[in-house]
Amino acid sequence: MRITALAGGVGGARFLRGLRTHLDRSPGLADTELTIIGNTGDDISLFGLRVCPDLDTLLYTLGGGIHEGQGWGRADESHRLLGELAAYGAVPQWFTLGDLDFGTHVVRSQWLGQGLSLSEVTTRLARRWGLPDQRITLLPMSDSPVETHVVVEDEDGQRAIHFQEWWVRYQASIPAQRFQAVGMDRATAAPGVLDAIRGADVVLLPPSNPVVSIGIILGVPGVRDALRGTTAPVVGVSPLIGGMPVRGHADACLAAIGVESTAAAVAGLYEDFLDGWLVAPEDEASVRLPRATVRSRPLLMTDTDAAADIAGAALDLARELAA
Amino acid sequence: MRITALAGGVGGARFLRGLRTHLDRSPGLADTELTIIGNTGDDISLFGLRVCPDLDTLLYTLGGGIHEGQGWGRADESHRLLGELAAYGAVPQWFTLGDLDFGTHVVRSQWLGQGLSLSEVTTRLARRWGLPDQRITLLPMSDSPVETHVVVEDEDGQRAIHFQEWWVRYQASIPAQRFQAVGMDRATAAPGVLDAIRGADVVLLPPSNPVVSIGIILGVPGVRDALRGTTAPVVGVSPLIGGMPVRGHADACLAAIGVESTAAAVAGLYEDFLDGWLVAPEDEASVRLPRATVRSRPLLMTDTDAAADIAGAALDLARELAA
Repeated sequence: MRITALAGGVGGARFLRGLRTHLDRSPGLADTELTIIGNTGDDISLFGLRVCPDLDTLLYTLGGGIHEGQGWGRADESHRLLGELAAYGAVPQWFTLGDLDFGTHVVRSQWLGQGLSLSEVTTRLARRWGLPDQRITLLPMSDSPVETHVVVEDEDGQRAIHFQEWWVRYQASIPAQRFQAVGMDRATAAPGVLDAIRGADVVLLPPSNPVVSIGIILGVPGVRDALRGTTAPVVGVSPLIGGMPVRGHADACLAAIGVESTAAAVAGLYEDFLDGWLVAPEDEASVRLPRATVRSRPLLMTDTDAAADIAGAALDLARELAA
Repeated sequence: MRITALAGGVGGARFLRGLRTHLDRSPGLADTELTIIGNTGDDISLFGLRVCPDLDTLLYTLGGGIHEGQGWGRADESHRLLGELAAYGAVPQWFTLGDLDFGTHVVRSQWLGQGLSLSEVTTRLARRWGLPDQRITLLPMSDSPVETHVVVEDEDGQRAIHFQEWWVRYQASIPAQRFQAVGMDRATAAPGVLDAIRGADVVLLPPSNPVVSIGIILGVPGVRDALRGTTAPVVGVSPLIGGMPVRGHADACLAAIGVESTAAAVAGLYEDFLDGWLVAPEDEASVRLPRATVRSRPLLMTDTDAAADIAGAALDLARELAA
């Protein structure tokens, strides 16, 4: 079986680690090939280095190097290099980069500087984290740099800031007017992305942010058409439980694009291609979709076992739809 | 008073820290402005970052951050980032870069990438290390990239390798055929370098490597002419004691250019501009120079006090020559 998933950072990574666990535990599913299309709209150049937060969170989570408590960054991390940059007066200091994490950014930047594409670089990084051995292929959504900027307005007037500044520095506390995917007009899907959607047996949307993660990937030319055209069932997992994001600021992102913070409204963003929608029990009553089949179950990914069970339920729904 | 010094790494840095100590202790000399022209021929790009080993050793030594035991790199250093690069298969691993040290290379590379010259970057780095407060100006010999390569011959045949590979990886154990200062034909002296020599009251040559440190600086267009033309006395301190380098591989470097490993032969490399030559007592009898005044005293820089005394003696000789 071939499963293709679109994913942002923490939520997507935890879901997909659960999915891999579920596949490995299920008779006849261990051979399943999993292709992950990662959001690169969060990418940012810091201190001259290229940082890809969502790809890194996917690599570290799937590769066993993640800081479990915070959900991003490396376990057993230290921050000596960043302290040096501060001593030199280098900014920004609001984006926490650890010494181990810097290793990824340094080597990625070196390889990009040598002319490798982000796809090629990601393949190399994934090898170190053992993804091929787990039958996981991680693809960036695009090899072209795309950066999500946020138009905000406060006492300093209206301005566009990098998504990471809004998300990390301001914790999404400044109301967003809108999002701009800078560079998307020149972007193309990375090699393998469209084929992975078209050729999949199942397409999954993990509970990633529907606006700044999944939404950005959907903006890559050809991706939405591929989702509409694929013969595979497309099943999504709601990122909202009782109308609230489990973590992150999906509600603030939805508000910025004028969409209600409900499991039903999020499904509406995917309505042209979504076949199945897994929601939390508390949301089931309020979700009526004209085209997609809705199922409910607890969606809190408290640990890998819980994530595996949720992923298994999404897969069950996909198989039900394909039958 | 204005003192200008040419310098390589460890030996030069220790001598100049001693000089600054001597000046600060001497009545009427605390106001002395010290300009250091640092060798950049050792510079190397590693992992996409620009590393300037001699400038860094000067910064760390004069700024109080040096690892005293090894003479280079940072005190209280860790090597977590380098371990990550190894895990990703990035090479080379023979050049030890610590987490704190990486901070310097990351910020330097960022600033160079923003279009600042190496001089401008070095001025910024020097500020963090408190050099302006010590009346020290650190100039790279050139803003143009110059890299010393070493032509070697072994079972693999003749080839040119970067100086750092020869020095650090092979510990100068492969006989060098010759040195090439790659990029020197397009290099010019950095802003302030020639004026610092011409306008000095005293020019000092610390006990740095006469071939790959001082020798490379002397190859920068205009430097040798400025030394010949300056009205300041030019006083050098022998890097050899009893024909042997105290540390480093000056003897191997001298052999490569067909020069005897003696204090007299090193002085011969400077004979067109050298006015005073400070040697160790055991070398005094064998040094007879047609043009320069020779003095002897113990030259082992066992600690900063010892280095201060040696620097004081070099300064005494310069004042004797100027009188």
